[in-house]
Amino acid sequence: MSKGLPTRSENYSEWYNELVKRADLAENSPVRGCMVIKPYGFSIWEKMQRALDDMFKDTGHSNAYFPLFIPKSFLSKEADHVEGFAKECAVVTHYRLKNDPNGGGVIVDPDAKLEEELIVRPTSETVIWSTYKNWIQSYRDLPLLINQWANVVRWEMRTRIFLRTSEFLWQEGHTAHATQAEAIAETEQMLDVYATFAEEWMALPVLRGIKTPNERFAGAVETYCIEALMQDNKALQAGTSHFLGQNFAKAFDVKFQDKEGGLEYVWGTSWGTSTRLMGALIMAHSDDSGLVLPPKLAPIQVVIVPIYRDEEQLAKISDRVNGLVKELRKKGISVKFDDSDAYKPGYKFAEYELRGVPVRLAMGMRDFENGTVEVARRDTKTKETLPFDGIVDHIANLLEEIQQSIFNKALAYREANSFRADSYEEFKTTLDEKGGFIYAHWDGTAETEDKIKEETKATIRCIPLDAPEEEGTCIYSGKPSSRRVVFARAY
Amino acid sequence: MSKGLPTRSENYSEWYNELVKRADLAENSPVRGCMVIKPYGFSIWEKMQRALDDMFKDTGHSNAYFPLFIPKSFLSKEADHVEGFAKECAVVTHYRLKNDPNGGGVIVDPDAKLEEELIVRPTSETVIWSTYKNWIQSYRDLPLLINQWANVVRWEMRTRIFLRTSEFLWQEGHTAHATQAEAIAETEQMLDVYATFAEEWMALPVLRGIKTPNERFAGAVETYCIEALMQDNKALQAGTSHFLGQNFAKAFDVKFQDKEGGLEYVWGTSWGTSTRLMGALIMAHSDDSGLVLPPKLAPIQVVIVPIYRDEEQLAKISDRVNGLVKELRKKGISVKFDDSDAYKPGYKFAEYELRGVPVRLAMGMRDFENGTVEVARRDTKTKETLPFDGIVDHIANLLEEIQQSIFNKALAYREANSFRADSYEEFKTTLDEKGGFIYAHWDGTAETEDKIKEETKATIRCIPLDAPEEEGTCIYSGKPSSRRVVFARAY
Ligand SMILES: [Zn+2]
Ligand SMILES: [Zn+2]
Repeated sequence: MSKGLPTRSENYSEWYNELVKRADLAENSPVRGCMVIKPYGFSIWEKMQRALDDMFKDTGHSNAYFPLFIPKSFLSKEADHVEGFAKECAVVTHYRLKNDPNGGGVIVDPDAKLEEELIVRPTSETVIWSTYKNWIQSYRDLPLLINQWANVVRWEMRTRIFLRTSEFLWQEGHTAHATQAEAIAETEQMLDVYATFAEEWMALPVLRGIKTPNERFAGAVETYCIEALMQDNKALQAGTSHFLGQNFAKAFDVKFQDKEGGLEYVWGTSWGTSTRLMGALIMAHSDDSGLVLPPKLAPIQVVIVPIYRDEEQLAKISDRVNGLVKELRKKGISVKFDDSDAYKPGYKFAEYELRGVPVRLAMGMRDFENGTVEVARRDTKTKETLPFDGIVDHIANLLEEIQQSIFNKALAYREANSFRADSYEEFKTTLDEKGGFIYAHWDGTAETEDKIKEETKATIRCIPLDAPEEEGTCIYSGKPSSRRVVFARAY
Repeated sequence: MSKGLPTRSENYSEWYNELVKRADLAENSPVRGCMVIKPYGFSIWEKMQRALDDMFKDTGHSNAYFPLFIPKSFLSKEADHVEGFAKECAVVTHYRLKNDPNGGGVIVDPDAKLEEELIVRPTSETVIWSTYKNWIQSYRDLPLLINQWANVVRWEMRTRIFLRTSEFLWQEGHTAHATQAEAIAETEQMLDVYATFAEEWMALPVLRGIKTPNERFAGAVETYCIEALMQDNKALQAGTSHFLGQNFAKAFDVKFQDKEGGLEYVWGTSWGTSTRLMGALIMAHSDDSGLVLPPKLAPIQVVIVPIYRDEEQLAKISDRVNGLVKELRKKGISVKFDDSDAYKPGYKFAEYELRGVPVRLAMGMRDFENGTVEVARRDTKTKETLPFDGIVDHIANLLEEIQQSIFNKALAYREANSFRADSYEEFKTTLDEKGGFIYAHWDGTAETEDKIKEETKATIRCIPLDAPEEEGTCIYSGKPSSRRVVFARAY
């Protein structure tokens, strides 16, 4: 039940935590920092996976699977990479337990110490490039376009379900190319795939941009990202695509023979999205009554609730509704007819509202006799009574309309919460009073970026790909700048 | 290329290893005991996953996700379980690395020792039942029908790709029920699902049976299994379904309020299949030329190879073939038109044979002019030249025929290699000279089972569910027995 869900304006953070819990999306596990993704939450993630996977395959990628463990020494092979990832990670040091001779249950067997410790993968560039070395000899082996769906672990002290957990689920693409241009084109293509997925499936408008060197993936030459705005006016990075140059090829000695017979290092990319997208989906659209799901990702798109006094009435309504259920399913619409006797209609309404079911139909005896049905939209919370005849087409159209409408609302919200700041004072005032995306001039140095972050907790989310040239001066240093970048406080 | 693939009769084990490697299914990774599943192999696994997942959902199950790590103390809560699983497992003892002050790269940070070690899950009963405790209060919360697709780790000293690896991929179902009868029905239902999948998708005939107490899952009251026979006459366990009784409910204190208001322990089941099925699929059907794949699991069902001398000929053939490709795809048949110039037809033929593509079409200029096409079956290695008109329907039927034919062949093989033995001498002779499934009387004791295993390396694969009652005497002890059980040497 949604009763007592905190409101967003009261306490956005509590609202999120409670919503995740009450809508049966996920919960904290007995293992610190790791989550349990519950069936309802997981079914949304499955829909995301399926849509992304189809897009990866349509762009020529295949799935594969690489080991969970990475030998400790691998991490050190790419100098930047080890700085970024070797630190907070789960380390396997032993491979056996034994009975405590003193009767204290099981203990780690000191005789079963690994010669070289294994790291639970925080990301798989190292183990994958060490494998690619054997797979790539000639230009004929390129491009190599591979993706993997996997769990990864990055030890976190402060965790939040979906947004930052020690273990999370993700996909990581790892590709190898003969030329720099081809690798950059791949990096940009996958950013496009992510942006298209965010906008068309998640109904989430995103900025496409490039990260500053400070925020770049450890080991990348360039990191592209998509950035979305949440309802508390904080930014959320929803996907990254990295151009790796020849960094990993050099670290793992991956060369290929080109058409002319010369030996050259391979060019690489990697790109990933994770269960973090679940957090973005929840925070971007939901309201004080619960989840709002875009129809394309809703596990149940339409729920039908009968309102009846006795078995005879239920039988009549069911009889009419069963045909509708069949027709909707024929159109590929997922529908649930909730005729369970355990709960009253009002309880069911609140429950499906909480779970974000996009369309709710209700039919009572009056509707039955009048040949009508009540149609309620989750996103706008509007209701109308419509003729039962022709309702199938109406619902099919309505689902498309809702998908578009949720996107439009989020886009309008982002537009209304995107600001320009031309001085540091203006920047700080906007940040504190409004938040959102702040477009401002920056001198291009890491020092300025660090100072601003230190003083305001805002980071440069990206240099937008479509940023127009504009002469200006850095809000912090006053030095010249040729385009605005996007600042925000972020998840 | 298949050139030089060892033959099965020469060296079955080498044949398997080389086939796995050359057909691009999988390879050993730089991490001891862990494999890399290559794109072609993974695409077969994806088809298996999809089919199984659909069957799980059709029987009312939902997917969820539970943590990779299990606190060490959890394993000790179910007494048998810890004996079975706590021993050979990956133990995480630290959560941070740091730079070696002596300049030796990164080392484990001794200050980042976990208070309680974490085990990388070898199976998830413990962490799942500790979660179910919070999810189950009343009979209304039951049954709870959940599955998870995950990676698990069981440290192995002697590994073989797909058959026994330290990390493997699997699914594990974990269900909770109000009554013993319901839990047993679930256990049996999932065994049926596995058997149906093995027979209808993998074309692999299986025995359905019950494990002896010796071979039972650690923590189960009863373990059901499906057992298949490989071409070297060794058995392979292809799936298990466990009735857990109230063991895990008691270990994790999971009770529910029944309809009458009483508090009772919940009844449980768990069931799993893994990437081991890939090993079974390969070993059951393939031949000395390479893989033989049942069409339902073949990533490419039909390959079309043009035979031409110049661009003009290729253009003519392509023109005709492109329409066919479209029509086959419309029927849901996956087809590849290999018009690449890099390799000659003969090379391509061998390559697709190695990879087990069920149907190969070839079209040269003579076919083009005669309005024919050459159709080759991978399983029987037969060829026929057929009219191009009507070829689509012919191929659709042929794929079904091949699926059935591969099953029939495997079934005939198993029947021809199932034996009865009525004395220990006969048993040992049959085992050494023929192998296969040996039906024999057993006195029902673990002692006899252990002795036979020690002396012959044969184990009791199962007590078949359909074993008829038959009075007899144990081949080892001469004690009375009322039905035959199935012995074999096994993977
Ligand atoms: Zn960005
Ligand atoms: Zn068995």
